[in-house]
Amino acid sequence: MMKIAVLGTGMVGQALAGRLHELGHDVTVGTRDVAASLARMGQTPMGAPEFGSWYADHSEVAVATMPDAVADAELVVLATAGVASHAALELAGAASLSGTTILDISNPLDFSNGMPPSLAIVNTDSLGEHLQHAFPDAHVVKALNTVNANVMVHPAQLAGGDHTIFMAGNDEGAKQQVRELLESFGWRDILDLGDISAARGTEMYLPLWLRLFGTLQTPAFSIKVVR
Amino acid sequence: MMKIAVLGTGMVGQALAGRLHELGHDVTVGTRDVAASLARMGQTPMGAPEFGSWYADHSEVAVATMPDAVADAELVVLATAGVASHAALELAGAASLSGTTILDISNPLDFSNGMPPSLAIVNTDSLGEHLQHAFPDAHVVKALNTVNANVMVHPAQLAGGDHTIFMAGNDEGAKQQVRELLESFGWRDILDLGDISAARGTEMYLPLWLRLFGTLQTPAFSIKVVR
Repeated sequence: MMKIAVLGTGMVGQALAGRLHELGHDVTVGTRDVAASLARMGQTPMGAPEFGSWYADHSEVAVATMPDAVADAELVVLATAGVASHAALELAGAASLSGTTILDISNPLDFSNGMPPSLAIVNTDSLGEHLQHAFPDAHVVKALNTVNANVMVHPAQLAGGDHTIFMAGNDEGAKQQVRELLESFGWRDILDLGDISAARGTEMYLPLWLRLFGTLQTPAFSIKVVR
Repeated sequence: MMKIAVLGTGMVGQALAGRLHELGHDVTVGTRDVAASLARMGQTPMGAPEFGSWYADHSEVAVATMPDAVADAELVVLATAGVASHAALELAGAASLSGTTILDISNPLDFSNGMPPSLAIVNTDSLGEHLQHAFPDAHVVKALNTVNANVMVHPAQLAGGDHTIFMAGNDEGAKQQVRELLESFGWRDILDLGDISAARGTEMYLPLWLRLFGTLQTPAFSIKVVR
């Protein structure tokens, strides 16, 4: 069991924090402004609970500022919107992140020109690489960014878990830590694509994910690498 | 059975031309310079046969210039390198392509900065859209660009064909034509992602495909959309 900080209070942060607590970890959700996050009640436009409403049912999870959440965390889950990822880690503090595994779930989606979003970082760079470069002493592992929040933490809901999740990162120890976490969620086919530059591949899959979402009319899907 | 022009003499063109002939279609391979293509013997650096060597075993397929190949074709398979796609259609002639279905398999891979290639068109545009815009009277259908040449035409070799191929295009009749062709190859899960702008999704999957190729050490793989 680990001390885990989950940065981000949205759908992905809620799913991860809830599941990690359920699995017995000591979970703290990190947010920019604790009082403001707890005060947000009701539902988001996407139909997910606002953080305050979610927290009313999950008060066994701690909530803290970004620096307090990561201070003694053994693993940090980066579950912010992609455009906020760098700022969240900056707030948390580079010193606290030194030697720490960062499970980066975020995608560099840019909604500023409406739907569908484009990718703010693309092609010859990726958000995963950008974060690893900005926080060189942390161990960034890109994973889980290719599926919906609910599929991330309950993969067995689809085809009994017979589908694939990807992993990319420069540190073998950190990847082993993430692999064990993914296995505890129920993932069985965990494909290590190599160093963090493979995040280009999994992030650039997002436009296909978005079209599949539109076609299938549900985010409850995943891909299996058939070989 | 249809009159089909396959533009491109590389691995993809060879695979498509051979398989379409085998299925009883009247196939003509279109190339910029017939004599030069037929004179290329031996193997490419990737280990595929050069066109002249391939043709020695497939002389039942016709070879012609681009305009001659498409002149009375009912369907055109665009199997050139992505950087050459526009020029190939230009050479073939916009007038001949009017009302014709173009099965666009090409990917906008840019190898000019070495490996891995980046995408020359990306994010808010795609090669499929670019071609549809440049040849507005043709019916561009993007498909098959997410798998290796051999998997394209023999999908049953993997998991008995239990994996997914994508399709995108603006014309329903052209998509129906392509769907029937894909079914004749053995594809069973053909996902229509909507209009040609969905080509952004399938083209931007290429960086992930390239990483999977590196990790699996074989191009004999595909993805199944599990839902």
